[in-house]
Amino acid sequence: MKVDGKEMRPIWFDRASKTVQVIDQRFLPHELIIESLNTVDDVIHAIKEMVVRGAPLIGATGALGVYVSLVRKNNDGADNEYFEGECNRLKDARPTAMNLFRGVNRVRDAVLKKIDYDARVKAALAEALAVVEEEVLNCQQIGRHGFSIIEDISRKKGGQSVNILTHCNAGWLACVEYGTATAPIYMAFDHDIDVHVWVDETRPLNQGARLTAWELGKHGIHHTVITDNAGGHLMQHGRVDLVIVGTDRTTRAGDVANKIGTYLKALAARDNNIPFYVALPSSTFDWGITDGIKDIPIEERDPDEIRYVQGLCHGKVQTVLVPPEMSPAANPAFDVTPARLVTGFITERGVCNATERDIMALFPEKRIG
Amino acid sequence: MKVDGKEMRPIWFDRASKTVQVIDQRFLPHELIIESLNTVDDVIHAIKEMVVRGAPLIGATGALGVYVSLVRKNNDGADNEYFEGECNRLKDARPTAMNLFRGVNRVRDAVLKKIDYDARVKAALAEALAVVEEEVLNCQQIGRHGFSIIEDISRKKGGQSVNILTHCNAGWLACVEYGTATAPIYMAFDHDIDVHVWVDETRPLNQGARLTAWELGKHGIHHTVITDNAGGHLMQHGRVDLVIVGTDRTTRAGDVANKIGTYLKALAARDNNIPFYVALPSSTFDWGITDGIKDIPIEERDPDEIRYVQGLCHGKVQTVLVPPEMSPAANPAFDVTPARLVTGFITERGVCNATERDIMALFPEKRIG
Repeated sequence: MKVDGKEMRPIWFDRASKTVQVIDQRFLPHELIIESLNTVDDVIHAIKEMVVRGAPLIGATGALGVYVSLVRKNNDGADNEYFEGECNRLKDARPTAMNLFRGVNRVRDAVLKKIDYDARVKAALAEALAVVEEEVLNCQQIGRHGFSIIEDISRKKGGQSVNILTHCNAGWLACVEYGTATAPIYMAFDHDIDVHVWVDETRPLNQGARLTAWELGKHGIHHTVITDNAGGHLMQHGRVDLVIVGTDRTTRAGDVANKIGTYLKALAARDNNIPFYVALPSSTFDWGITDGIKDIPIEERDPDEIRYVQGLCHGKVQTVLVPPEMSPAANPAFDVTPARLVTGFITERGVCNATERDIMALFPEKRIG
Repeated sequence: MKVDGKEMRPIWFDRASKTVQVIDQRFLPHELIIESLNTVDDVIHAIKEMVVRGAPLIGATGALGVYVSLVRKNNDGADNEYFEGECNRLKDARPTAMNLFRGVNRVRDAVLKKIDYDARVKAALAEALAVVEEEVLNCQQIGRHGFSIIEDISRKKGGQSVNILTHCNAGWLACVEYGTATAPIYMAFDHDIDVHVWVDETRPLNQGARLTAWELGKHGIHHTVITDNAGGHLMQHGRVDLVIVGTDRTTRAGDVANKIGTYLKALAARDNNIPFYVALPSSTFDWGITDGIKDIPIEERDPDEIRYVQGLCHGKVQTVLVPPEMSPAANPAFDVTPARLVTGFITERGVCNATERDIMALFPEKRIG
C-alpha cells in the first residue's frame, strides 16, 4: 500500500543483498525504520519482539526465515538435523500464531524434497515468496467478499457514513497488502463508499492507535482513535454499524483467538445487535481443534508491556512508567471469542456463518472422515 | 487511610489557614503533591481537571467549594445573586457526577437559611464538613455490607484467595476514607481474608493503574494491574470470583453510569456467571430518572487525554504522544451499565438487587406517590 505516495510492504526480499527487509513496527507511527533480517536469530527476534506482528505477516516472516536459515550456510553446515532445529526454533517464536507453524512447515517441506544444497536454497526462496504472494491474493479476496457487507449497510443507510469498529491492527502492516479486517474497508473507500473507522487503541501495545490509525490516515480514510473501553458505549448509542476484526487462530468450530479484548467487543456487539465479523485467510484456521477456550494456549507476555507506554516525547520515541514501580502486572496477549458471538467469517473463498457446518461447506477438503 | 504510615485523606480543611487542602491526584503514583483551593476558580479547576475525582470526593469538594465561595468575600460581595451564581458554576464543573449537585445544593440550602454573613460562612463550613464526614460513615457501612459477600466467597473457596476485579478507582482517593468498591476489600483484608485484586488500568487516564494500584499497594493488598482488555479472558478461565465497581450516577431503576468500559466488564461477568456488584453511597442515586442510557448525559472529555499518556520518564512525570499526530480521537468518559447486568448494589443501608422495587424497599422514602 502507499506511504507518502510510495508503494510499500511490511516485508520484502531484496535480491541484490539476498536479505529479508522489514519495517520495524515497534517505532511506528513516529519513526519509519527498516531492518535487515540476516540470521535466524534476527528473524526470531523480529517475531518475538514484534518488529513484525499480525498472523499473516508472522507466517510470511517465518516462511522467509526458513530461507534465511539456509542461505548463510553451506552444504556442510546445513544438514537435516540443523535444519529441523532451526525450523522448530522459528515455530516456537510465538505460541498463538497458526500461520507461523504453517508458513514454516510449508517451506520446510519444500526444502526437504531436495537433496542438493543449492536446490534447497532455491526451493526455500521460491516457496517462501509463494507464501508471501498468496497472503496478498488472500487479502484481496477477503476485501472483495467483505466489500459487499459494507456496501449493503451503506445502501441501507442511504449512503450515510458506515461506522466500522476494529480492534488491534489487522491491516496491511499485519499482512502484506490490504490487510484482513481492513481489506473490505480499503475496498469500500476506493469505491467511494463513505466509511468511518473507530480504531480501538488496543492496549497494551497500542497497535490500533499506532498502526491502524497510521495506515488508515496514510490512505486518507476517516477514522477516530478510541480507548478499548469506549466501544460498548458507542454501540449502545447506534454509533457503530459493523465490527470487523482479524484473528491469530480460529478453530474448525469457529472460536476465534485474537488480540486481548476482542471478546469484550463481541459481547457488546451481540448485546446491541451489531454484526461482528472476523476476516481471515483460511491459513489461520486450526483445523485440528474445536474448543478455543480449552485448546488454544494464550501467550503471556512481559508485564512491562503494560507498565511502560511508548510514545513521542520532545521529538523522541520514549517510554513512561504508568503504575507504581512496585505494582505487579499480568499480560495475557489474546483472548478467545466463542463462535456463538461471531456473525460470520470473511475468508478468501467467501463469507460463512461461524458454525463448523458452514465453515466445512466452504472448506470441504477439511472435513474429517 | 495510611500512606507510608501516616494517616491521610484526599481532602481536608486546614483550620489555621482556613483553606481546603487536596492531594493533586494527577501526579500520583509518582509524586504526592498537596494543593490549596483558595478560590471558587481553584475548586472548579480541581474538579474539572481531575485534581480531585471520584463521585463522593467530587461531592465533598463541591460542598467545601460553597464555603470557599463565601469565606474570601465580605457581606457586600456575597449577595444571593453572586452566591447562587457561584453555586451554579460549581455544579457545572462535571456533568455526570450526581454527588456534586447534591453536595453543593445541600450546603447552599444551609447557607440560605441564614441572613447574616458570618452565620452563613459558619453554616457553610459546618454543613460541608458534615457532608465530608457522612461520606466517611457511608463508606464504612458499604465496607461492612460488602464484607459479607467476600467472606461468603472465601468460605466457599475453603479460604483460597478471593479474586476481585475492579475498574477505575473507587477507592479512598475517590471518596474520603475506605472507598466504595474498595471498602469491602479493605475490610476483608483487615479481617485476614485472603484477597487478590485485578486492577483494570482504566484508560484513558489510568486511574486503576495509577491510583487503585497505589492505594492497595500502600495498604499491603495483593493486586495485579491488567489492561482493560484482559478481564473477559480472566473470567472465562475462572480467575475472577467477583467484580465490584463504583458509580458516578445510578438511576432509581438501577442503571449504572460509571467510568467508560464498566459496561464491557458487566457483559463479561454475566457471560461467565460472575457476580457484578456496584458499591455506592445512596447520594449517588439520581432518584429522578429511570432509563440511564437515555437520561444520563455522558461527558465528552478532551481527546488529548487519549492521545497523550502520562508516566515517569527519567525520574520526571512526562507525557508521550501515542497515535499519529494527525489522527483524531474521541473521549466519552462514562458508559451506562443496564440494571439487568448488575447483580446487586452495596449501599450504606445494605445490599439489594438492581431493580427499582428492591432499591425502593431499601430507600422507601424515595418512593414516588
